Amino acid sequence: MKIAVDAMGGDFGPRVTVAGALQAAEDFRVEVLLVGVEELIKKEFDRSPRPHARVTIVDAPEAIGMGEGIFSFRKKARSSILVGAQLLKEGAADAFVSNGNTAAVVYISRRVLGAMEGVNKPALALLVSSLQGLTLLIDVGANANCRPQDLEQFAVMGRAFMESALGLADPRIGLMSIGEEDGKGNDLTKEAFRLLETAPIRFIGNIEGKDLFSGKADVIVSDGFTGNVALKVSEGVVETLLSMGRHEITKNLLAKVGFFLMKRNLKKIYRKLDYSEYGGALLLGLKGGCIIGHGRSNPNAVRNAVRLARDFVANRVQDRIRTEIGRARQATGGI
Amino acid sequence: MKIAVDAMGGDFGPRVTVAGALQAAEDFRVEVLLVGVEELIKKEFDRSPRPHARVTIVDAPEAIGMGEGIFSFRKKARSSILVGAQLLKEGAADAFVSNGNTAAVVYISRRVLGAMEGVNKPALALLVSSLQGLTLLIDVGANANCRPQDLEQFAVMGRAFMESALGLADPRIGLMSIGEEDGKGNDLTKEAFRLLETAPIRFIGNIEGKDLFSGKADVIVSDGFTGNVALKVSEGVVETLLSMGRHEITKNLLAKVGFFLMKRNLKKIYRKLDYSEYGGALLLGLKGGCIIGHGRSNPNAVRNAVRLARDFVANRVQDRIRTEIGRARQATGGI
Repeated sequence: MKIAVDAMGGDFGPRVTVAGALQAAEDFRVEVLLVGVEELIKKEFDRSPRPHARVTIVDAPEAIGMGEGIFSFRKKARSSILVGAQLLKEGAADAFVSNGNTAAVVYISRRVLGAMEGVNKPALALLVSSLQGLTLLIDVGANANCRPQDLEQFAVMGRAFMESALGLADPRIGLMSIGEEDGKGNDLTKEAFRLLETAPIRFIGNIEGKDLFSGKADVIVSDGFTGNVALKVSEGVVETLLSMGRHEITKNLLAKVGFFLMKRNLKKIYRKLDYSEYGGALLLGLKGGCIIGHGRSNPNAVRNAVRLARDFVANRVQDRIRTEIGRARQATGGI
Repeated sequence: MKIAVDAMGGDFGPRVTVAGALQAAEDFRVEVLLVGVEELIKKEFDRSPRPHARVTIVDAPEAIGMGEGIFSFRKKARSSILVGAQLLKEGAADAFVSNGNTAAVVYISRRVLGAMEGVNKPALALLVSSLQGLTLLIDVGANANCRPQDLEQFAVMGRAFMESALGLADPRIGLMSIGEEDGKGNDLTKEAFRLLETAPIRFIGNIEGKDLFSGKADVIVSDGFTGNVALKVSEGVVETLLSMGRHEITKNLLAKVGFFLMKRNLKKIYRKLDYSEYGGALLLGLKGGCIIGHGRSNPNAVRNAVRLARDFVANRVQDRIRTEIGRARQATGGI
């Protein structure tokens, strides 16, 4: 199995991605294609004590910055993201991992690979850790504008992923809305609710924002705008709490001692909410498996993203999505 | 000044609302009209050591349950929420406070009072505590479907409230979106962005979900669906953290000691995120001032809601909203 890894991605570039990729190649016994500026990658090889027998460099002289907009990155013909997506298209790689500019990975991989047959809109799905296990939130930002039938497809793709990659039989699908009653929501969710009720899935109804981390649903379906806001708000709350905490604890000695004693446990909690632990977001519904890691990723997060890519390929998630989308289209007369 | 208080609202009904209202009447020297089932309110009077010279009971024999849907509460002709809104309409009260069923308060007060002249959609606004002060999020759930010009009006109303009630000169207005760049967002926010740029306000551009509590903006404008999801997600994260925390700390003695020492500080942080501290949400743009407290309110939260109502009336927030909406309509040729 060959996993292409974007070496230029993330806030720290090759320093972090190469270390993570080398670790992954060793730990998971996969072949890694490191895509990026060759000399920079080689420099990182020199720094690392790990073997790199299973690692190959694929030169891509351009990098896309984390803050670059679509008008800028469309022009780059040899960016690491573009070259990585092309490796996937040509069959030279089985999956592509990038912790680069999310908008760029979504745009480029969509353009290079295209949508799977029958899929209206490939979507960005994210595994978050809940009180009870893992919940998949889909879409978290690939599609800011959605139609009700897009949300139905997100449900089907999310279900296929949870069943095949995580081995979760008949996952509970919830619809992100405001209020749990059937009639609550906006025009989009009300119509999507009607579609989800008749789709060949285990639909459990509306889910409120407060249940994003409660484990009430295994898959939470949302348009990409709402999903992205939900995700960013939860990151913001954790950051605010930590920031307030740091401010409060410097005020007196007892709190300092308390913080010191609780630190290990606080870190454990924080890690539970930190999605880089599970490797990152997945682009579902493309002709090829793409994993997008968090920009702030450390080497361990890059390693975990490669593990997720390996599981994605080994469990034939793509085949399952194709089958289930086909099945759903037949059941509903084409969605 | 007379403030009508819904005695039947909240998860705990008169036991909490009456105690909070008596405290508020004493602390803020306002007259309070307690609206609800007379005998139940009187029973609470007997329990309380506080004087109730400034408190009058207005009998309303029906109560609307926290979980009741619109089809059920539309039929109740003498509910405490309906009677409270009518007191406001008749001029017998200057503001109305309820910590009851939010959907019911929004629906009934809109129907009884109607929108202020020039206002398309009255909106639910909430003060949240940020790292730097208070931020107003508008709309948090009154309007699940919005047009771009509605968002523009929310900005104008939010600005009027922050200036008049909080004395904040020329507050910074942000638009809740995905990504800070101007071009990011969905169809609704992209068009709203264009309108906000030319409106007579200090528009600072897109705000991401992570900045809800960072204090980057004084007013954050959003459609009611997104605003409600954002709010519920942040509640959910805090609850999940506390729940994970409790689980973790029972695991070993050192963590227990640590938790004990940090407890006071944790509570302080939690209170900062607890919006009942600031009295609740405001319905802006109605012909009358309505404050909706959190259903889980304790007596102190009810007291703070009455304080917010007093400030609302004393600072002539209604007049300011009317003036600013008029000014904005003139500036843009009618929004």
